Amino acid sequence: MPFELTRDYIDQLKELINGKEDTAALEMISELHPADIAEIFSELETEESIYLYNLLDSEVSADVLVELPEDEREEFFRSMPGEMIARRVIDNMESDDAADLLGELSEEKQEEVLQSIEDVEQAGDIADLLSYDEDTAGGLMAKELIKVYEDWDVARCITEIRRQSEEVYEFYYVYVVDKDDILIGTVTLKKIIIARSTTRIRNIVDTDLISVRTDTPSEEVANIMKKYDLVSLPVIDTIGRLVGRITIDDVVDVIKEEAEKDYQMISGITEDVEHSDNVFLLTRARLPWLIIGLTGGILGSRVISMHESELRISPEMALFFPLIGAMGGNAGVQSSSIVVQGIAAGTIDLQGISGKLMKELSVAFINGLILSGLLFIYNLLFSDSFALTITVSIALFSVILFASVFGTFVPLILHKFNVDPALATGPFITTTNDIIGLSIYLAVGRLMYGII
Amino acid sequence: MPFELTRDYIDQLKELINGKEDTAALEMISELHPADIAEIFSELETEESIYLYNLLDSEVSADVLVELPEDEREEFFRSMPGEMIARRVIDNMESDDAADLLGELSEEKQEEVLQSIEDVEQAGDIADLLSYDEDTAGGLMAKELIKVYEDWDVARCITEIRRQSEEVYEFYYVYVVDKDDILIGTVTLKKIIIARSTTRIRNIVDTDLISVRTDTPSEEVANIMKKYDLVSLPVIDTIGRLVGRITIDDVVDVIKEEAEKDYQMISGITEDVEHSDNVFLLTRARLPWLIIGLTGGILGSRVISMHESELRISPEMALFFPLIGAMGGNAGVQSSSIVVQGIAAGTIDLQGISGKLMKELSVAFINGLILSGLLFIYNLLFSDSFALTITVSIALFSVILFASVFGTFVPLILHKFNVDPALATGPFITTTNDIIGLSIYLAVGRLMYGII
Repeated sequence: MPFELTRDYIDQLKELINGKEDTAALEMISELHPADIAEIFSELETEESIYLYNLLDSEVSADVLVELPEDEREEFFRSMPGEMIARRVIDNMESDDAADLLGELSEEKQEEVLQSIEDVEQAGDIADLLSYDEDTAGGLMAKELIKVYEDWDVARCITEIRRQSEEVYEFYYVYVVDKDDILIGTVTLKKIIIARSTTRIRNIVDTDLISVRTDTPSEEVANIMKKYDLVSLPVIDTIGRLVGRITIDDVVDVIKEEAEKDYQMISGITEDVEHSDNVFLLTRARLPWLIIGLTGGILGSRVISMHESELRISPEMALFFPLIGAMGGNAGVQSSSIVVQGIAAGTIDLQGISGKLMKELSVAFINGLILSGLLFIYNLLFSDSFALTITVSIALFSVILFASVFGTFVPLILHKFNVDPALATGPFITTTNDIIGLSIYLAVGRLMYGII
Repeated sequence: MPFELTRDYIDQLKELINGKEDTAALEMISELHPADIAEIFSELETEESIYLYNLLDSEVSADVLVELPEDEREEFFRSMPGEMIARRVIDNMESDDAADLLGELSEEKQEEVLQSIEDVEQAGDIADLLSYDEDTAGGLMAKELIKVYEDWDVARCITEIRRQSEEVYEFYYVYVVDKDDILIGTVTLKKIIIARSTTRIRNIVDTDLISVRTDTPSEEVANIMKKYDLVSLPVIDTIGRLVGRITIDDVVDVIKEEAEKDYQMISGITEDVEHSDNVFLLTRARLPWLIIGLTGGILGSRVISMHESELRISPEMALFFPLIGAMGGNAGVQSSSIVVQGIAAGTIDLQGISGKLMKELSVAFINGLILSGLLFIYNLLFSDSFALTITVSIALFSVILFASVFGTFVPLILHKFNVDPALATGPFITTTNDIIGLSIYLAVGRLMYGII
């Protein structure tokens, strides 16, 4: 059963640590999964977790480090010399995790650690991986994999798997290459177990194979693995040689991060922050969009003051400033978020833009009609000014129509110019639609009050 | 290499279908992955895809159906009698996919299909799965798995795997049970390949095992698989008997759907819609939040009209209605979205609420100070009314402070009462903060204009 962390548990553990009862403290956590131990560390004071960490054996402690949030891991690394990182941490890790961790260190410390790794081949693998961009298949992949040659038979293959598998923590496919190391297919372990031992690999290889290149962007890797339900994906270089493999657990993180990024973008947060980050980070992540909102508000006040003379004649128009602004923002965010999700899912490219606009317009037309109808009835009943009643409803209808078209168009255009379309959601769309909505409202007002 | 769908390709295929050139049409798609064929289907007219579908062999066509979006799949099912669905579709599927598909049909059609399935055991498995709630481990799991008894040796185990694996499309673990079918651990294929054939399973079984019960909610299943990096998770019943297993690809879908749900909630969309859905669905999904926004706007107009007499004296206050409303909304959405993400990630429970509020207040204090300072400078330079200058800045500061606290509190409280905290993001928080912001602004105005 999954472990559940309680306040009592933490208190008890803290007591043991502070009383230096090493054996008892270790006993409390020894049966736990590294991910659970990492969770416990996050609840302890830094010195307490470093103390506990030093009690763990190297293999477990390396796994715990991988699971820690980046800022907490940094504190651990700060307390360790490079040679200790190499021996206690990196030695017990797969190359992709090792490269990710080293990537967080300063260049000097990276070098110090790499030079302290005893296994030269491992050090070379990690150095290779460090050279790839973090956001590409190269940055995601691990070097450890099981590779067999097409002219081997199953018996030799099993011997080799036994030998190679000492280095590979877990694997699901065996990759088949030709004599030049060019990837030609896969064999599942299931097939190897089922096959006779004299069968040639070439006769059971599945060449119907999906692979990516080292420079394929992470987001595309995630989409491919999701679409084809893959647990593992081989990575090849420019001439088709097998250089690594990506597993689904790395991609789950990419999917989660992408979703979080879009979510934060729409809520007006610019950096990847969590509620546990410090006040400075949290402030810095939020201030930019608030300043955009402030600028929008100031521009809005300018728009209103340009119509000061009309407002002096019909001041009741001010009653619906907030309503018009808010509705423009809401409708715009709805439209843009649907487009942004469509683009992210990769389902929006093929169909023409005009079809999408027509559909958006229809939705906006219906919604606009219903909402301005409701508002019309409300004002008929409760407002003294018929001119205002007409003005607000016409303006609301126009604003919803405009905001939907705008909210659809902007992310599509950003995407066309290779800018992240998620930029066009949240505060940006709200602020813009606020100002434009006000302008429409005031313009309609000028017209209507002139007529009625 | 992944397949890329082009307009040319679709046009060429349409021509072949309409010219009834079966062999040529089939040849164009025969080498493709079912997920790609499903993508092609989405680009064709319904009759064209049904025509093409009938050319495919049963196994491929079943896989294609699984990959289709639900509404397109419905059209396929409508064109097929129950007996044909059983034979051409369900027969070629794993039990979890089959149950998911049948779950979309009407009860009568479900029964019709179940009775037409020849393999009684398979029909029973599917009927079992249909009885679980869709959003639980029972609803996610498949019945097909490889199960061995602890007292077998590796040789017998391999024989059994060969036999059982005919039914299981792909597997990563072999589950070990005792004589009462109680799950006691797993053995990886890797271990079986490496072990001597006389070794007893009991000696290589890994009992350090994470499992879930059939009634564990999907979201928790996803969090567990993410946290522990699992590719496959066994499901047990109330007394610990092994009843199924969940694979990571099913959970990737859960993670994606959860993220999409939260994203749509924050953008004011109530149902799970895509840009490709029809106008009616898209309208229905958006209207509710817009009506909430409309109601908020109307309440806002009431708040303003309650202060009509002051506004007649100082009408310039109306200039900043939009700014105050927008900033309250922005700051509130930022706070609530960080809390909602924290709750979703399961990292927010342990720490006390007071600590979080203090941090939120600090962030809001700094942001509020900077923003109201900027606005003060702007108004000093460009506004004629010092009372307005003072009023707007004090109000902005208070609104940001209030909105942040409110945005933090509401999702926490909803969560406490087991309501989805994501409800408190987007239009709800924006609308509420709009109204409260206006009230604060007008109250500060009454005070300040009284003093100055």
